[in-house]
Amino acid sequence: MDEIEINSLAEPDLRDPVLIEGLPGVGHVGKLAAEHLVEELDSELVRQVYADEFPPQVTVNDEGVADLTCAELHAVTTEGDGPDLVVLTGDHQAATNDGHYRLTTAFLDAAESLGVETAYALGGVPTGELIEEYTVLGAVSGVEQKATLEDAGVEFRPDEPEGGIVGVSGLILGLGKRRGLDAACLMGETSGYLVDPKSAQAVLEVLETVLDFEVDFSSLEDRAEEMEEVVGKIQEMQSQQQAIPDEELRYIG
Amino acid sequence: MDEIEINSLAEPDLRDPVLIEGLPGVGHVGKLAAEHLVEELDSELVRQVYADEFPPQVTVNDEGVADLTCAELHAVTTEGDGPDLVVLTGDHQAATNDGHYRLTTAFLDAAESLGVETAYALGGVPTGELIEEYTVLGAVSGVEQKATLEDAGVEFRPDEPEGGIVGVSGLILGLGKRRGLDAACLMGETSGYLVDPKSAQAVLEVLETVLDFEVDFSSLEDRAEEMEEVVGKIQEMQSQQQAIPDEELRYIG
Amino acid sequence: MDEIEINSLAEPDLRDPVLIEGLPGVGHVGKLAAEHLVEELDSELVRQVYADEFPPQVTVNDEGVADLTCAELHAVTTEGDGPDLVVLTGDHQAATNDGHYRLTTAFLDAAESLGVETAYALGGVPTGELIEEYTVLGAVSGVEQKATLEDAGVEFRPDEPEGGIVGVSGLILGLGKRRGLDAACLMGETSGYLVDPKSAQAVLEVLETVLDFEVDFSSLEDRAEEMEEVVGKIQEMQSQQQAIPDEELRYIG
Amino acid sequence: MDEIEINSLAEPDLRDPVLIEGLPGVGHVGKLAAEHLVEELDSELVRQVYADEFPPQVTVNDEGVADLTCAELHAVTTEGDGPDLVVLTGDHQAATNDGHYRLTTAFLDAAESLGVETAYALGGVPTGELIEEYTVLGAVSGVEQKATLEDAGVEFRPDEPEGGIVGVSGLILGLGKRRGLDAACLMGETSGYLVDPKSAQAVLEVLETVLDFEVDFSSLEDRAEEMEEVVGKIQEMQSQQQAIPDEELRYIG
Repeated sequence: MDEIEINSLAEPDLRDPVLIEGLPGVGHVGKLAAEHLVEELDSELVRQVYADEFPPQVTVNDEGVADLTCAELHAVTTEGDGPDLVVLTGDHQAATNDGHYRLTTAFLDAAESLGVETAYALGGVPTGELIEEYTVLGAVSGVEQKATLEDAGVEFRPDEPEGGIVGVSGLILGLGKRRGLDAACLMGETSGYLVDPKSAQAVLEVLETVLDFEVDFSSLEDRAEEMEEVVGKIQEMQSQQQAIPDEELRYIG
Repeated sequence: MDEIEINSLAEPDLRDPVLIEGLPGVGHVGKLAAEHLVEELDSELVRQVYADEFPPQVTVNDEGVADLTCAELHAVTTEGDGPDLVVLTGDHQAATNDGHYRLTTAFLDAAESLGVETAYALGGVPTGELIEEYTVLGAVSGVEQKATLEDAGVEFRPDEPEGGIVGVSGLILGLGKRRGLDAACLMGETSGYLVDPKSAQAVLEVLETVLDFEVDFSSLEDRAEEMEEVVGKIQEMQSQQQAIPDEELRYIG
Repeated sequence: MDEIEINSLAEPDLRDPVLIEGLPGVGHVGKLAAEHLVEELDSELVRQVYADEFPPQVTVNDEGVADLTCAELHAVTTEGDGPDLVVLTGDHQAATNDGHYRLTTAFLDAAESLGVETAYALGGVPTGELIEEYTVLGAVSGVEQKATLEDAGVEFRPDEPEGGIVGVSGLILGLGKRRGLDAACLMGETSGYLVDPKSAQAVLEVLETVLDFEVDFSSLEDRAEEMEEVVGKIQEMQSQQQAIPDEELRYIG
Repeated sequence: MDEIEINSLAEPDLRDPVLIEGLPGVGHVGKLAAEHLVEELDSELVRQVYADEFPPQVTVNDEGVADLTCAELHAVTTEGDGPDLVVLTGDHQAATNDGHYRLTTAFLDAAESLGVETAYALGGVPTGELIEEYTVLGAVSGVEQKATLEDAGVEFRPDEPEGGIVGVSGLILGLGKRRGLDAACLMGETSGYLVDPKSAQAVLEVLETVLDFEVDFSSLEDRAEEMEEVVGKIQEMQSQQQAIPDEELRYIG
């Protein structure tokens, strides 16, 4: 196998397709959001990206059949006048600095082969505390993109997130910008301790407005309710124990 | 030396040869099983695979003679009507993600140069507790392979093992499948704390049925008895100490 | 993207330009000093160095606009008869040994494309205790460079710093020397626990003398005063607690 | 700079030159021994090996002059009828698996360019306790080399050292053997806690016999005496404190 191999399964006919990236990260916000689009809308697997940067691993499906780990691009057609989507999902980021660059370059190549000229990288931004109101933070490759996003409720805070945006989401902006793509990152606020379907929904609601499509949220709301119960138990523990040490507030998902 | 070098020592005449892989892993199940075949059956060393992914290391034999670490492919001829075997053994997996991909590619290249079109990757699957009944779990590259394995007692459980199959065994399936090989993984259940000759025997008994050969198990049974004594001591300690913390149940081999 | 890409933004007309390197390191002495030159003097961004050795990261500015992490070379013109400067700044060193070599090679290539034949690598040298008098230690690529630096107050101590000079600063000397560059390293003594603007000023005062330019220090002095307060609090804690264990004297910045 | 660069400084006229390798390792036995040969005998620096596998580092000499880290090959001419030596010294091993392979390949290339057909890799083998009698263990690339070494007092123990021989010393044997070099490893027993000049002397005494040369040991004996004092203090501490925990018996050098 080469370092990276892009496997083309179909050449869909898409209207002004927009790349939506959602790989694992803080609160799994991006991954939950991207997978929700693939599951709820009319989608077709069109590209697989294999890379020796991924763990040396196969996943086993419910039939006992094993397949090599890869990232997948799905063509998603939406109703209404908005653009179609190319949704990038997967189970892994890269394992090294240069691997992240090589991998994101392959993702952008695959997306461009499908006609993509605009990209949204989805993710979470950790606040360190349980969220009441789900704000979505934004960052853009060009200042002219801000107005539309602000109209859809996205907040821009100077120099935030403080440590920049890391991983594939960051490079979708950084490398995308260098090759002339309009790219934005939408980051749902999330505690950072929990898989957060509500934050994923907040991010998707922004996308619905900006890209003019609709998606049903009931399955995501079900999952959110399950997490609510976990949150409830944590809060109960906190009120009982007065002060719970930070180290015990590990990631739960 | 190149990144990987395949040293050809002999070109054996093999009947429908099947690759059997057994490198170090959970419970050393795969390695014990593969080495047992090489020791008990009529075998010849036919390929050595050197790789700069392996530790920079020589092993010293009983004569004081040092040899560079490598993986070895042995041609194993079996009695009866079943296929011959190409058994892959060695002391190391790769040290990096991309190294695993490169190394498995070299193993598959070496096996194909010997006429292999089918592969069995042997390994262990950790259960976290001492095993009473040695079940063998399976995963396959194609669903049509399941019936034969199920007839030989292999269990297929949906989406198991949960974290997928990692390392060379996983890639024998994943990369093998991508180049058209029929590949299966046979995973003996094992505690995960002990080198487990009984689990290796359970895996080999499946192979005996599927590939129609016989092998004597007395040396493996002797080794199992030694391990039984270790297990006995652990259980004694457990009953005395009521509860032994999980962290103290380290790997013993 | 290639492993390393040098982006040329301008071809300034510089008088005998001298490379000044200041990347993150002990006490952030080099970085503070280099950034101070860029901010206080007449400077123009002329080269950006992108590298897959850098973290996969974008930084977000006060407008919410994201840019790929890079190192930057600024053309700095000075008043008086001294040479002009090419100041190298950035937020990251490399993440691997070979990455440091590749990155420094790119920095030297970029500097040479601007006409640089002399280089000063700025950094800090940790003393393990709070500094009263800010000495600047030196190391040179050739013994003939010492006299001028000694006249400017730089101390040369045999075989110091004991562990050599690591990172980009070290390689500016080592790789620079191998390609015929006159290179020197100026290392401000610093505790190693604190970001140290005073040590940065001490290093810059040497440069002022050697390269015959002047720079205003008031902003650096303001920052130093803030750090003084931190130092004051540490000393107060020390006098109260008699002996403070070394491990608690962590890096504060 | 390329990944590895070999800098040729001289083309000495050597009689049947034998490579002697001594890089940092257990007890610094190999390094002490190799450096002692370079210091005490008639030696000339003939090759420098630069590699981006080495730390990104310059060393600073007693004049304050910095030089890029490298490994060095010295031509050493001996009196008497024995062969001349090519002594390989340096401050670093490689940082990665594949780096060790690339680096040792470069060392063997450099040695062969000087006419070397035989190699001795020097090192220490840790015993975990203070040494009374300094035995030298051996390992060879071919069994025919054993007799001469055994006559010189070298011990060969089946399958020892248990974990094989790692690092450049191991690969001098392993890669050397693969290119037809007669190679042996001489490993002085050493506690593993201390820099051990006595073990280095034991190894050199074997070389004196095998290669028919003489070297003065007084400087090594002086250094050994300094270490004896350290050993004495440790033993005193041990007798006072009855039992000293293993973890406190750290490496002292």
